[in-house]
Amino acid sequence: MLLQLLDYLGVGVFAVAGSIVASRKGLDFIAFLFFATLTGIGGGTLRDLLLGVPVFWIKSDGYLMVCLAVSILMWFFAHIVEGFRKPLRWADAIGMAAYSVMGAAKALSIGDTAFVAVAMGVATATFGGVLRDVVAGEPSAIVKQEVYVSAAFAGAGSYVVLNYVGLGNWYAAGIAALLALCLRGGAIEFGWSLPSYPKSKKGS
Amino acid sequence: MLLQLLDYLGVGVFAVAGSIVASRKGLDFIAFLFFATLTGIGGGTLRDLLLGVPVFWIKSDGYLMVCLAVSILMWFFAHIVEGFRKPLRWADAIGMAAYSVMGAAKALSIGDTAFVAVAMGVATATFGGVLRDVVAGEPSAIVKQEVYVSAAFAGAGSYVVLNYVGLGNWYAAGIAALLALCLRGGAIEFGWSLPSYPKSKKGS
Amino acid sequence: MLLQLLDYLGVGVFAVAGSIVASRKGLDFIAFLFFATLTGIGGGTLRDLLLGVPVFWIKSDGYLMVCLAVSILMWFFAHIVEGFRKPLRWADAIGMAAYSVMGAAKALSIGDTAFVAVAMGVATATFGGVLRDVVAGEPSAIVKQEVYVSAAFAGAGSYVVLNYVGLGNWYAAGIAALLALCLRGGAIEFGWSLPSYPKSKKGS
Repeated sequence: MLLQLLDYLGVGVFAVAGSIVASRKGLDFIAFLFFATLTGIGGGTLRDLLLGVPVFWIKSDGYLMVCLAVSILMWFFAHIVEGFRKPLRWADAIGMAAYSVMGAAKALSIGDTAFVAVAMGVATATFGGVLRDVVAGEPSAIVKQEVYVSAAFAGAGSYVVLNYVGLGNWYAAGIAALLALCLRGGAIEFGWSLPSYPKSKKGS
Repeated sequence: MLLQLLDYLGVGVFAVAGSIVASRKGLDFIAFLFFATLTGIGGGTLRDLLLGVPVFWIKSDGYLMVCLAVSILMWFFAHIVEGFRKPLRWADAIGMAAYSVMGAAKALSIGDTAFVAVAMGVATATFGGVLRDVVAGEPSAIVKQEVYVSAAFAGAGSYVVLNYVGLGNWYAAGIAALLALCLRGGAIEFGWSLPSYPKSKKGS
Repeated sequence: MLLQLLDYLGVGVFAVAGSIVASRKGLDFIAFLFFATLTGIGGGTLRDLLLGVPVFWIKSDGYLMVCLAVSILMWFFAHIVEGFRKPLRWADAIGMAAYSVMGAAKALSIGDTAFVAVAMGVATATFGGVLRDVVAGEPSAIVKQEVYVSAAFAGAGSYVVLNYVGLGNWYAAGIAALLALCLRGGAIEFGWSLPSYPKSKKGS
């Protein structure tokens, strides 16, 4: 199925982003595997725990095998992959965009409300990376001034809105994922960021 | 219902405490929303996952709407709110006191034992703040030498004890919450702290 | 039952390792209790949440009582216990080895697949310590160049393999736990570590 393939692709892309952290820190293979798995399945795991449905990677070995395969490849080729900084960030952006929509869709599909669906989209798309950064002791995407969580938010939010106004599911998913991807792409290519809370206000 | 209102109030107070972190770091609006939500619902989410009951904010949009509303207000008024340091700490103390009792009560109500109920009270009252500090990369309340976790512990513990000796539920809840509030208030007003592990012992 | 006793012993050993962090930082008694409990039951809690089974310490007070008892003892004797650095690390190694096998066994016993069972063994054996280090703001075992996660991985993996090739459950468990213990012991006694990702490759 296409959807299943997309899902594995998303886990794989995030696993790459996870193992890069291990390679940058010069860690051993088990750390490659640990960070690849944590980042690859972390967001979806949180989503499933919160929704009270079985965790997606528990009943099928496929997802863990993707993480293992990525770790092995990265153990040999991480130095090459790291050279492609921009393609890598775009790959991560595609994973994030797809997951923000898939997280929201999963919540809606089991009858949860709009706000919950948006929260699930954001959690699925971003939590794996947050876990990775917290365990690695690095600043997470939340405290960096980049359009990342915001793009996931836009993707999940627009999917839910388009779904509510009656657009077909695949159109809604496509448009929403594209919106998230464009916003994140703008951050990658042009350094887009949201206005931050003006520190000068503090003096007022 | 009064209890429902108190619950929203608790989420709201913690959401304020969460978004303050985003404002201090000068982050963007999505970070305000993220930290408000994480802090507002984090403790109760852990409690419900551990107890194996549906997560409280999943089946109703109200809690997430409270977090959203708080984030919007804080985005405009955080610099004013931050001026009221002491009232803010008292508001957080009220939330902590109420949640330590409500967490323990929820565990008892589904038939769990005394020790588990105390652990749930402490987790509900403190885990949102711990999550916030870990993600923000700041020292958590656990490693600060303040009466905070201890006050939650006293609140949850005394509620369970008073409940076991047969005091009416509302009396037990009131007395226990007041005890937690007084202990935390002592820390706010007079810098109360528990004796810490004497480092000098190490030399012995 | 022997198995029950072993389980309490594992929680107790990890609780000691947790409270040591509180003693090193010179924190108060509640922090001793917090870190002892987090480290003692953290790994098994994650395992049970992921597997979708009731969390093991919720329905019986025994596990929390072990953590409380350890905290009280450590509050008085931590300075003495800390003197025994090597015995302490060996005790932790025994807990890790036992838990890597018990985590994998629990997953297999409810019909999960081999990869999932290995992941559960590693999570049970290491996650309590990772949580402790993240909350305490210290570098976790994952980013330290020591054979720790790898030993848990070897223990869980060999148990699953030996189980699949038809070795009796107790033989498989014994051999796997011994393997994990020897690998970890090698790290403690001789500083064993896995080869790390060569930073020099980056220049190539």
